[in-house]
Amino acid sequence: MATIATPNTAEAFGVSEVNKVKRVHERGRYDKKTVYEILDAALVCHISYIIDGRPFCTPTGFWREGDHLYWHGSAASRMIRKTKEGVPVCLTVTHLDALVMARSGFHHSVNYRSVMAWGNAHHIDDPEQKLKLMDRFIDRIYPERSKLIRQPNAQEFKATTMMGMEIEHASGKIRDKHVSDEEEDYEGVRAWSSTYPVTQVIGAPIDCDRQIPDLKRPDAMVDFEPGARLDHVLTKTYKRTFGDK
Amino acid sequence: MATIATPNTAEAFGVSEVNKVKRVHERGRYDKKTVYEILDAALVCHISYIIDGRPFCTPTGFWREGDHLYWHGSAASRMIRKTKEGVPVCLTVTHLDALVMARSGFHHSVNYRSVMAWGNAHHIDDPEQKLKLMDRFIDRIYPERSKLIRQPNAQEFKATTMMGMEIEHASGKIRDKHVSDEEEDYEGVRAWSSTYPVTQVIGAPIDCDRQIPDLKRPDAMVDFEPGARLDHVLTKTYKRTFGDK
Repeated sequence: MATIATPNTAEAFGVSEVNKVKRVHERGRYDKKTVYEILDAALVCHISYIIDGRPFCTPTGFWREGDHLYWHGSAASRMIRKTKEGVPVCLTVTHLDALVMARSGFHHSVNYRSVMAWGNAHHIDDPEQKLKLMDRFIDRIYPERSKLIRQPNAQEFKATTMMGMEIEHASGKIRDKHVSDEEEDYEGVRAWSSTYPVTQVIGAPIDCDRQIPDLKRPDAMVDFEPGARLDHVLTKTYKRTFGDK
Repeated sequence: MATIATPNTAEAFGVSEVNKVKRVHERGRYDKKTVYEILDAALVCHISYIIDGRPFCTPTGFWREGDHLYWHGSAASRMIRKTKEGVPVCLTVTHLDALVMARSGFHHSVNYRSVMAWGNAHHIDDPEQKLKLMDRFIDRIYPERSKLIRQPNAQEFKATTMMGMEIEHASGKIRDKHVSDEEEDYEGVRAWSSTYPVTQVIGAPIDCDRQIPDLKRPDAMVDFEPGARLDHVLTKTYKRTFGDK
C-alpha cells in the first residue's frame, strides 16, 4: 500500500492505509523511538491471525530485536502450524495507564500506550539462530539467566517453535491526559471527575519450595524490586540485555 | 463446526475445532462460570478482525451481558465501518498473574487467566437499546454513574457506534501454579527459582483541577480503594451493577 505521509526512514514508520491511526488520529505515533519504547516495556502481546477465514487473537510472550519481533509456542499450537509458510499477522501491545472519569459518557476514557505492528510471520528453523533466540528470550526478561539454567535437550528443542516477523507497518497510540470535557460541563454537571492511575506491579518473589538453600536472587536481577512497575522492570531488563538498539 | 465433546448446555460452551485449547490442553476451561469470571474482571480486551485479508488486533473497552459482549468506538473507526454488516471477530481477554522462573528455558512460564470468544459482530442501531447500553457501559465500571453525568447530545449519540456479538464459541485458559521442572533439575541445576506475582492496581484518584469544590467520590464507587487490584474492583462493580447474571 502506498505511503501517504511520513517517509519510512530509519527514524519512523511510513504511514499507510494499514497503520494509519484513524480514530482520534492526534493520538497516533509513528516514530520508531516511541513504538519501540512501548513494545520493549511489555512481555505479553496479542497476536491476530486468520485460519479458514476466521480471526484468532492469542496472547503470548514476545520481544523485539531491531525491526524484528519474536515469539514462540509449542509445535502443537494451531497458529504456529498454520503459519509454517509465513502468514500475515498483527501483533498488538497495550499498557493501560489510567481510568478517566468525565462529566459525560462521551468523554469517559482511559489513558494507555499501545502499538499495532503488522508483518509476515515465519518459522525460525536454523538451529543455531533458534538456540540463540531461545536464550535471548529468557535473558530479555531475566538478564544473564540463560547462563544459569539447563540448556534445552533435543526433545525440548524440537518441541519449541520459534516464530519471527519483520515489522512492515507499525503505529503507536497514546492518551496521557486528564479529562477533556465540554466547556459548559465543567460547572454545569455535578459529577465528581477524577482519573485513577493504573499500574501493573510485581510483588515479592515466592521461592520454589524445593529451592537449593543457599541460592539467592541473582545480582543481574536487581531490577526485580517488589512493588516495581512491570513495564519499568521490563524496560530496564531489556536495556540491560540489548543496550539501546 | 461440529461439537466434539462437552455439549453446549447452559453451564458450558461446546468444544469445537474453533475453541478447543490445543496448546497445554489441560489448562483449558469451558464452563461458563469460569469464562464469565475472567471476562467480568476485565475492562480492556483485544478484538481481532479481518480487513482485505489482513488481520487487525485492536485493544478496546468491553463488557458482557449474558452470552453477549459489547464494545464501542467512534463512527470513524475502520473496524466498525467494515463490520457494519456483521463480520467474524475474536475477542480475547488476558490477565497476567505471575512470572514463573524455572530451571530450564523450556519450563519458564507465566501464570495467567485468558478467554478467547468468537462470534459475529454487529451494530446496535436501535436508538433505545443503544442509549441503554451506553449507560450500562459507564455503570458497569462506575456503578450508578450514568445518573450523575450529562446524557449524550444528538451529535455524541451519532458519533458513538455500539457493537455487540453473541458468543458462539469460547474457551478459557488458566495457569496458576509454581514451577513444574524436570525432576532431575530440582537438585541438579543451581538456578534460583521463584515466581513473581503480577497485579494490576489502581492508585489514588487525581481530581480534575476544575472540580466543583464540594464534590466527593460517590458512595457507589466504594470499591475504588487506592491500591486495590483492578480485576477485583471490576468484578465487584460488575456485580454491583448487574448482579450475578
